Amino acid sequence: MQIAILLYDRFTALDVVGPYDVLSHLPGAEVVFVAEQPGPVVNEVGSLHLVAGAALADVTRPDVVVVPGGPGQNAHMADGPVRRWIQAVDAHSTWTASVCSGSLLLAAAGLLTGRPATSHWLVRDALADHGAIPIADRVVFNGKYVTAAGVSAGLDMAFALAGRIAGDAVAQAIQLAHEYDPRPPYRSGNPDTAPRAIADAVLARRASIVS
Amino acid sequence: MQIAILLYDRFTALDVVGPYDVLSHLPGAEVVFVAEQPGPVVNEVGSLHLVAGAALADVTRPDVVVVPGGPGQNAHMADGPVRRWIQAVDAHSTWTASVCSGSLLLAAAGLLTGRPATSHWLVRDALADHGAIPIADRVVFNGKYVTAAGVSAGLDMAFALAGRIAGDAVAQAIQLAHEYDPRPPYRSGNPDTAPRAIADAVLARRASIVS
Repeated sequence: MQIAILLYDRFTALDVVGPYDVLSHLPGAEVVFVAEQPGPVVNEVGSLHLVAGAALADVTRPDVVVVPGGPGQNAHMADGPVRRWIQAVDAHSTWTASVCSGSLLLAAAGLLTGRPATSHWLVRDALADHGAIPIADRVVFNGKYVTAAGVSAGLDMAFALAGRIAGDAVAQAIQLAHEYDPRPPYRSGNPDTAPRAIADAVLARRASIVS
Repeated sequence: MQIAILLYDRFTALDVVGPYDVLSHLPGAEVVFVAEQPGPVVNEVGSLHLVAGAALADVTRPDVVVVPGGPGQNAHMADGPVRRWIQAVDAHSTWTASVCSGSLLLAAAGLLTGRPATSHWLVRDALADHGAIPIADRVVFNGKYVTAAGVSAGLDMAFALAGRIAGDAVAQAIQLAHEYDPRPPYRSGNPDTAPRAIADAVLARRASIVS
């Protein structure tokens, strides 16, 4: 089972590594990081580089495709090598997954037309501009498509997907090995529970994510 | 504020990227990944490479030190360049933090002697072999030392540490931007809630983490 995780400049690191660190422990999983060029790819902050082991053209038939989000997603919404790769690998994938604003890339590629999907709360409404049906859930399954809400939701998505792929017991064992028993020290993880002033301040950054 | 995150062969990726993706968004934060040699460092699975931007000798006075876990930690428990670097930077740090079995490295370096600390549930008891006091909490603060439980606990640790460094409002804004409102699809994140057979199976892997 080949799992291809897309990288592009200015991706969000946790969007990638949350799902990676779950799915890479599935029995028989072989993960490959894919980018326009092989080699180091820089994240949105500029201080983290993950190495892409393959170019887009080298990964043509992955079983599972994971598309992360991050402000860099904006550069690939229009027709181009990344969008064409997403379309090409989706034609044969068993599962096509996204985290955060990665679902905007799936939608822009025409894969979510008429389908319910989620994204980062800040840009979820933009899914409708590309034909998808925005849903305010943390993880949305629709056929072979699974979309996650913002950044850390990629972990919840990955455990749910791991269960679908390999069964509940395998997913539960990975969860225990990762001690995924979250205890956030604040209740500020969504705009309904966050202090109002903080939600407004984060909302003001929307323009940096969708143009 | 310089934040140094240690890398070594066979680290656990989420131990690193969970805290990174929180702490790198602190105002004035400059994150540097440090390893024995600069360049790509491979994780425990073998398919992920994070790039170290600096060698140990190049990072001498970070304000915050983060030591991740992973099976590769075993190779650095005895005296050597990594342990000496941990001791040297700890002498001047404002905060010294660990995730997962990273606390065993701090303890082996003599930094946690007589201090309460936590670690991955699977190896937490081994802290006592190195003079620390094992505590079954997700995040343990003691003076300038903060230790997290297994893998994903690095996220909870990082939000708590972000609050101590920059105040609650900053930490809450980062939490909202990361949509950290976890909804694990299974209740298998700790050995008390996981199905017994699954806990036993994970327990059997202990020998691969501590020798």
